[in-house]
Amino acid sequence: MTIGVIYGGTRVKGNTETLTERVIQDLPVEKIYLKDYEIKPINDQRHVQGGFEEVNDDYNIILNRVLSHDILLFATPIYWYSMSGTMKLFIDRWSQTLKDANYPDFKDVMSSKKAYVIAVGGDSPLLKGLPLIEQFQYIFDFIGISFEGYVLGQGNKPNAILQDEQALVIAEQIHRSLKQQVN
Amino acid sequence: MTIGVIYGGTRVKGNTETLTERVIQDLPVEKIYLKDYEIKPINDQRHVQGGFEEVNDDYNIILNRVLSHDILLFATPIYWYSMSGTMKLFIDRWSQTLKDANYPDFKDVMSSKKAYVIAVGGDSPLLKGLPLIEQFQYIFDFIGISFEGYVLGQGNKPNAILQDEQALVIAEQIHRSLKQQVN
Amino acid sequence: MTIGVIYGGTRVKGNTETLTERVIQDLPVEKIYLKDYEIKPINDQRHVQGGFEEVNDDYNIILNRVLSHDILLFATPIYWYSMSGTMKLFIDRWSQTLKDANYPDFKDVMSSKKAYVIAVGGDSPLLKGLPLIEQFQYIFDFIGISFEGYVLGQGNKPNAILQDEQALVIAEQIHRSLKQQVN
Amino acid sequence: MTIGVIYGGTRVKGNTETLTERVIQDLPVEKIYLKDYEIKPINDQRHVQGGFEEVNDDYNIILNRVLSHDILLFATPIYWYSMSGTMKLFIDRWSQTLKDANYPDFKDVMSSKKAYVIAVGGDSPLLKGLPLIEQFQYIFDFIGISFEGYVLGQGNKPNAILQDEQALVIAEQIHRSLKQQVN
Repeated sequence: MTIGVIYGGTRVKGNTETLTERVIQDLPVEKIYLKDYEIKPINDQRHVQGGFEEVNDDYNIILNRVLSHDILLFATPIYWYSMSGTMKLFIDRWSQTLKDANYPDFKDVMSSKKAYVIAVGGDSPLLKGLPLIEQFQYIFDFIGISFEGYVLGQGNKPNAILQDEQALVIAEQIHRSLKQQVN
Repeated sequence: MTIGVIYGGTRVKGNTETLTERVIQDLPVEKIYLKDYEIKPINDQRHVQGGFEEVNDDYNIILNRVLSHDILLFATPIYWYSMSGTMKLFIDRWSQTLKDANYPDFKDVMSSKKAYVIAVGGDSPLLKGLPLIEQFQYIFDFIGISFEGYVLGQGNKPNAILQDEQALVIAEQIHRSLKQQVN
Repeated sequence: MTIGVIYGGTRVKGNTETLTERVIQDLPVEKIYLKDYEIKPINDQRHVQGGFEEVNDDYNIILNRVLSHDILLFATPIYWYSMSGTMKLFIDRWSQTLKDANYPDFKDVMSSKKAYVIAVGGDSPLLKGLPLIEQFQYIFDFIGISFEGYVLGQGNKPNAILQDEQALVIAEQIHRSLKQQVN
Repeated sequence: MTIGVIYGGTRVKGNTETLTERVIQDLPVEKIYLKDYEIKPINDQRHVQGGFEEVNDDYNIILNRVLSHDILLFATPIYWYSMSGTMKLFIDRWSQTLKDANYPDFKDVMSSKKAYVIAVGGDSPLLKGLPLIEQFQYIFDFIGISFEGYVLGQGNKPNAILQDEQALVIAEQIHRSLKQQVN
């Protein structure tokens, strides 16, 4: 069992990353910072003759790294009450991969994975972050991933998340659960 | 009262645009196709000394067009149960504009506007599109826009939306309401 | 195909009933006014030896009427952002029926039915009524009912619903759909 | 600062009560078991001449006890994805109290209170319990109560909640927060 962390944020050592560190701790993980890659918006060609054109960007590089792990942590700051645009660009492109002859078993592979969501926002995330969680539920249901848990943290200024005791105890608890799974 | 339509989709004459046409009909509107512009992901520098660096893309061009209208139609296909990544990139950047000395009254200007959401998806949008509507509610509440109404339509294949009679009657009803406002 | 209407409201000719009349019009329906019956709160005895004790109230009378129809309209005022307590009492008791030897095929029978929800509230029902719709989705998913549609109307004072043009056009559209099904 | 616990469940020592005990521990609280009282469904007479008739049941007894506390814990099993019908009957009646000349400052008094929600369900409460949390948010916003936190636990069979480690750590964390407030 290996763990991949998909970071949607843009700040280095932002609150989302700090909270995610509490989840990871000493576990071996691969960290994928989406902001370091170019991901073009999907061009919806599902119903165009010939289908999707190949896109010249870094999406498949990221995808291959994601596909190689058993457990995925989706770690995103809450921007405007949902995942970052960067993370959304990445997920939107799954629609293309679902039609991509080079990934014939994309859905099958995804549906063997487990996922956790780690999301930090400044405006009442425990309440106003709930639609985001519902969307992840629908996303994971569609692609077949098992939604194992989530933690919503509060924080705006750097390190503010360290004051959110509830988020920290949930992060610890997810850590313990992950530790059991990877050992 | 003038109307601006912000399109988040990537397909020409897709279902979202077709449904939006039923809302607009003969009303004069400005159509803004986000896909025709370059919008870079936000780089969260709210807490960096010196604040946000200027970004070299088309965001401000779009923003200026949006700010000039009294009524905004946010028209987006539902990709993975929320707005398109392209539209999310645009909205994420509002956080930068809120700190931008060139737009000191951004929030004030926005809070004089009215908005409608038009969203079309293939997987039970009347149920699985509800978190998206809740997010728009939070977005509009934060920035001060009055959320006047929405229509969720069903459709995947080109023109499928024309079979969604409920969406069409709601679009007609929003049209009548807009017509009264702009006259 | 026969239609049963389950009314959760307490007002005679309230807004919910008025909106429901627009859905029904000339169609033959059986109207079940829950307020006219005694429904005791469920006593959760799922894990008690001997199981549920028989309850001396009108629940089974209502249940039998509900079970006899193919299409169910759940018509409830929105009290405090969800269905009326009266309607909730009725649905809570389904847990008992699921264990009731007198109704061995309760879930099977329910899962052949179609349902619509008609709900009217005074405080932004198109936004704040969405959690209620999500709950009905979960309820129907659990019991196997097909959730065919819903209309959320706005109104507080008597007949205020007649000003909610969008709710009225949706009610009309549901009416047309029902008419096709029962003919 | 005193604490009142409003129990909506029907089982003695059910999972909701067990989880609530982890929140309370050694703190002095008053426990109000709604099932031990008679609460009649509201009869919506807001728009009737003369207004609400007096109701002959135990509602005002409960209300007076609730009003006497600074911090309220709403502890309910999740029945059919929302609060128990019993708890809903109690909250529905607030509409009557809002018009009751004997409680002229009902809303004022309520708006000085803080509340927590403790809810336990058997079917994915961390996901399918979210609409319930959103409803409590709307309820508390309307009446002016400050929504301080919540814990969603999983459990069906007696004591199953003791296996839900995440719920237990959140309960502990709420306990520590309450302890600071009452001391």
